[in-house]
Parts: sequence; structure tokens; C-alpha cells
Amino acid sequence: MSHKLFLLPGDGIGPEAMAEVRKIIAYMNEAMNTGFETEEGLVGGCAYDAHGSAISEDDMAKAMAADAVLFGAVGGPKWDAVPYEVRPEAGLLRLRKDLELFANLRPAICYPALANASSLKPELVEGLDILIVRELTGGVYFGEPKTITDLGNGQKRAIDTQVYDTYEIERISSVAFELARTRKNAVCSMEKRNVMKSGVLWNQVVTETHKAKFSDVKLDHMLADAGGMQLVRAPKQFDVIVTDNLFGDMLSDVAAMLTGSLGMLPSASLGAPDPKTGKRKALYEPVHGSAPDIAGQGIANPIAMIASFAMCLRYSFNMVAEADRLEKAIANVLDKGIRTGDIMAEGATRVGTAEMGDAILAEFKSL
Amino acid sequence: MSHKLFLLPGDGIGPEAMAEVRKIIAYMNEAMNTGFETEEGLVGGCAYDAHGSAISEDDMAKAMAADAVLFGAVGGPKWDAVPYEVRPEAGLLRLRKDLELFANLRPAICYPALANASSLKPELVEGLDILIVRELTGGVYFGEPKTITDLGNGQKRAIDTQVYDTYEIERISSVAFELARTRKNAVCSMEKRNVMKSGVLWNQVVTETHKAKFSDVKLDHMLADAGGMQLVRAPKQFDVIVTDNLFGDMLSDVAAMLTGSLGMLPSASLGAPDPKTGKRKALYEPVHGSAPDIAGQGIANPIAMIASFAMCLRYSFNMVAEADRLEKAIANVLDKGIRTGDIMAEGATRVGTAEMGDAILAEFKSL
Ligand SMILES: CC(C)[C@H](C(=O)O)[C@@H](O)C(=O)O
Ligand SMILES: CC(C)[C@H](C(=O)O)[C@@H](O)C(=O)O
Repeated sequence: MSHKLFLLPGDGIGPEAMAEVRKIIAYMNEAMNTGFETEEGLVGGCAYDAHGSAISEDDMAKAMAADAVLFGAVGGPKWDAVPYEVRPEAGLLRLRKDLELFANLRPAICYPALANASSLKPELVEGLDILIVRELTGGVYFGEPKTITDLGNGQKRAIDTQVYDTYEIERISSVAFELARTRKNAVCSMEKRNVMKSGVLWNQVVTETHKAKFSDVKLDHMLADAGGMQLVRAPKQFDVIVTDNLFGDMLSDVAAMLTGSLGMLPSASLGAPDPKTGKRKALYEPVHGSAPDIAGQGIANPIAMIASFAMCLRYSFNMVAEADRLEKAIANVLDKGIRTGDIMAEGATRVGTAEMGDAILAEFKSL
Repeated sequence: MSHKLFLLPGDGIGPEAMAEVRKIIAYMNEAMNTGFETEEGLVGGCAYDAHGSAISEDDMAKAMAADAVLFGAVGGPKWDAVPYEVRPEAGLLRLRKDLELFANLRPAICYPALANASSLKPELVEGLDILIVRELTGGVYFGEPKTITDLGNGQKRAIDTQVYDTYEIERISSVAFELARTRKNAVCSMEKRNVMKSGVLWNQVVTETHKAKFSDVKLDHMLADAGGMQLVRAPKQFDVIVTDNLFGDMLSDVAAMLTGSLGMLPSASLGAPDPKTGKRKALYEPVHGSAPDIAGQGIANPIAMIASFAMCLRYSFNMVAEADRLEKAIANVLDKGIRTGDIMAEGATRVGTAEMGDAILAEFKSL
């Protein structure tokens, strides 16, 4: 079994965070004989600077051939004015679409040591553990037409199209139900069926999929606006939330912010298992962005990137014990009061990106 | 000048809440000679039960002819299975569209007496005063095609279309800038220009409108997902937020929940001023829904409905002093510790819907 990792650090704090993952990979190869092979490419603004597109064909081919892609972050004010087709985000969106990474898993967990960092009252977020399952290759992100037309008279018309087919809703809800079985066995599906036809179909297909194959799982439906409210009011009521690409974008960001652990949250984007090998294409990335304001200073929090690598161990290589160990290492380091600036608290020890990475690696070794 | 009010109490707790507004109208007519004429109609599930549509042509005509519409709430489990075209929400959406109520004003304020009811830490929401200006007649709510098509093979395809024209963005952002001038003079525009063409156009037109006519107002742009995060992290950073129909739906609900005052928040939906008379068509409604679970028990909080009437006094009849007085009456009653169940706190006096309405009216009289 190959262990090909393709690293796309991207822009802003992406490269700094990725450097800490490299240390862990190197250690695992040396001490645990994991045999990870790594290659590195460009994505986002840095790719645009290098060759005028947000990701090159060559790097796309490497991503397609890899067992897993580790992705940092893209974008920054430097590229605010580049043409829409080659903006930094286009690289990420192409990866998601061409690798058919339809299932985006975004855990929103509250690290106990950080409950006080949340803007919510600590008792509402302590022990929070939600998994948002977001559809990632459909909806308004990719539907056609997607155009701006000049109507004359100084008027333009912009159009985006939200499209969902039955099979897309079926496969993403199946992922949500399957994951719920490994957790608290409850799924809440969110859409706007009172306004959107895609919401009507979404609701129907989730209901039918549940009835046909997952009736042992508890299923609720909530309107997406009410869902946003409930996330703020009482987030612990949720186990798994399944929703479409755009609602998932909004709701997972709100959920991430609730935890007070935004700089810490990883995500996995998975394709369908290959019918022959059972392998899924996969990309792992932090939920946070490229944070251009602090890039290059060595102060960024690498935990989300490291936790994304833990998800990679779990989902792409079935290295469950190693993933658990890495996650435990992160939690222990936090418990010891070691903190980057974004999660600093009174009495804690402030460290930079590299020191945080080193501390987690040391803890990982010792476990 | 006519003072024609058309009342549409709707479903669930709508009628109970509206009854309290009726008391205030009756008092104002009697004691202050305001000359309000009221008529009442059906909307939502009750309209469907009566004549098979979510609002009758007759009631639509009355809404068109009125100076202002007061709207309660629509919907409930009883009508979950009615056909899409006649579902309760269709009545509200038709009113918004046919009356061309493109500007939805949703204040998210935190009543000082309720800062502790928020799920956020009190210091983050105390004194919160945001105004969300949501575009209400465009976007994915009304764009065509909006269909579900049978593709055969058990596959269906659902399509919704997000459409925005220059003039729609221009007029809603002008409303936002004008209102900002009466407040802290700052507007934050939210869209997803990194993914949506409508976001690209939105951003451009808001920027141009600002430059052409409102350069004295501070303008920021934020991606809508980041905006949702920032609302949870530090809501007081915002003054006026301007955004499209769907993002406005999500973001205003999140903002409303932050305040801890959800049962208290009003909204105004306004049309363009008539070129001759300067009058705007308008509809006023609580942000909360029909709360079918507590309907008919006399325990619902009527404050959002009463505060919506205060907005009506302010925006439709220019009765600014009366609006201020009514809002002050609400705040005073809360300060006295008079509470409905939804905002109950230790040491407060629990009252029902009618008692709350009576207390506010008594306070209003005394001011
Ligand atoms: C960078 C952007 C295109 C992306 C998205 O909208 O999906 C991001 O917000 C995310 O959530 O991963
Ligand atoms: C009832 C529903 C159609 C409506 C909307 O989505 O606009 C509601 O959520 C609102 O925010 O006023």
C-alpha cells in the first residue's frame, strides 16, 4: 500500500503551519517506519504568481495521483484584484471538484482547556463535539449558469445556480448516517425547503435514504436559518449535521467560532471509495484561512494543520491508533498551558509556531 | 393623510401577539386622535384552511391599498404537507414580492435587562445595537428557474437561481448607507465574492454606490461566512450590515439569537418611496416564527409584535416621538422585572401575553 502525500501549503500562514506537519511526518517515517512519501506543489496566490493560474496542471495531476492531499490555506490582499477565474480560491475549488471530494467533514469540538476562549458561556460549549458533514462538490458553488451579463443602460445581471441531483444528496446523507453510527447516532439535516426547491428535494432524499438504509439513526430536520440560531443557543443538542455546500460553509464557520478553538479545527474532504480498492481520494485542510496579517512572523497556530494530518491518518491510512495518539498529544500540550497568541490565556506559556509544533511532537513521541 | 393599517395575524402565536397591538392602537385612537383605521385578513395556514391559498386576492388587494401591513407569523406542523405553491410561507413571500418590499430592516439590539439571557458572555452583548439591512425581493428566493425535474432512473434535479441586477444592489445599499448616517455611520457589506458571481457584482455595486453618493460613510466588506463568525466572536464591531436575501436570512437569525432577545425583535420591510407622495409601502413583522408549540396558551411574548408596531409608527407615519415612547415603555416594563416565560429570570414576575401587553400599554400611557 502506497503512502503518497501531496503537500500544498499555499499562502499566508499555510507554509508555516505545514512545516510543523513535515516534522511529524519525518519522525513517523524514521521511528515508526510509516513510509510516507511527500511531494510539494503550489496553490492559490503563490501559484498565480509563479505561473498565472491558481493551480498548475502538473500539480493537479500530482494531487490526483496522491493517496492524500494536505492543504494549507489560500488567498490574501495581494491577490484581491486578480481575475475571477484565477483567484486563489479557484485552486481549492478545482481540487474539490476534480477529485470529486463531495464529503466535507468538519468537526467542531471544544478543547476543554479552551472552553473559556469561546464567546459563549463556558457551560454551553464545554465538551461540545459536533460533526458537520457538508456537501462539497455541488450546489451554488458549481452550478451553471454562473455569469455576469451586461444588460446595457449601466445595468448588469449576475446569476449563480444552485443545483442538486438525487444521487448527490443520497451519497452525502449516507456518509452522515454512517458517521453518526460511530458517534451519538443522531443526524440533523438542514435546508430551506420553505423557500428553495433544492431544499424540498434535499429533505425528501434525506428522508428516503434514512428510511431505506439507516432507520436505526435518529433523524431530525431543521430550517437552515433556525439551525444557525440553535447552534448559537444550544450547540450541544447536535451530533451530526448534514447540509449543502453553501449552508455548510456558513454553518460550519459559525460552529467553529462557537468552540473558541477556531485556530485548532481541522477538516477532511473525501471522495467515494474506489469500487475495487476501497480507497477514497482525500484532502485535509484547516478550517481557518491564510491569515495574511500574521503570516511570516512565526506566531501562527499550527494545531489545525496538525489535527488535519491526524484526520488524514484516520481516514486515508486507517492508522486509527496513531491518529488518536496525535490528537491526544495536542490536547495534552494544551492542558500543560502551552499556547500560541490566538489562544493565549492568563498563566499560560506563550509560544510561536515552531515551538508549538515541537511541543506536540515531543508529546506524541512520549505517548 | 390616511392611516390605514391592514392586520394579518396569521398562524400560531400571531393572533395572540396581534391582540396586544390592537389594544395600543385603540388607546392611541381614543387618547391621541391618531385616526388609525384597521382591517384584518388571513395569511398562511389559516388562509389555506379557509380558501386553499396562502393569501386571497382580496386580502392582497387590501394589503396593496393599506398604508402599512402588520404581520404576525405563519406556518405550523398542521400544514407541513400542503403543496409547495400554497404553503404558509408563500403568503409572506407574495406580500414581499408584490408590494416590492425590497428593504428588510432587522435591528438586533440587546435589551440591557436581558443581557444575561444571551448564550454569549454578557460583556460581548451588553449595549449591542446592530441593524441588518437585508435585500428582500431578489436573489435565490425569487429567481427563475426554480424547479424540480424528473430525470428518470429514480433521479430528480432541483434548481434554484440566485439573480441580482445592478439596480437592486444599488437601492438596497443606498438604504443601508442612509440609515448608517443616522447611526454610527458604518456599513459592512457581506457576500461570497470568492465563490459567487452575484457576490462579485454585489461587491462592485456597493463600492460604486458608496463612492458616488455616500463616501462620508465608513464601508467595509466581509465574506459572508467570515461575517457569521465575526457576529459570534465580537458582534459589537458592527453598526449596519447590508447583505442579500439568503445571507440576510441566515445572518439576521444568528444576530437575533446573540442578543438573547429573540422574542423581542421586530422588523420592517419597506418599498421605494412613491415619487409623488414620498410614501413607501411597508410591512412590519416580528423576527420570531409562529411557535406552534405554545400557541393558544396565552403565554407568548408579544413584545416583538409591539416593537414592530413601533417601527411602523416611525417609518410609515413619521410618528417618531410616539415610536420612541412605545420603545421606552417596553424597556421600562422589562426593567421592572415583568417577563413572559421565554425571558423569565430569577426574581422576575412571570406574566402571560395579555398581562405583558397591558403592562406595556399602562407604561406607554404614563410616559
Ligand atoms: C475559500 C473558500 C472558497 C471556501 C469555501 O467557501 O468553501 C472556504 O470558506 C471554506 O469554507 O473552505
Ligand atoms: C418564513 C420564511 C419564508 C422567512 C424567510 O426565509 O425569509 C423567514 O425565515 C424570515 O426570515 O422572514
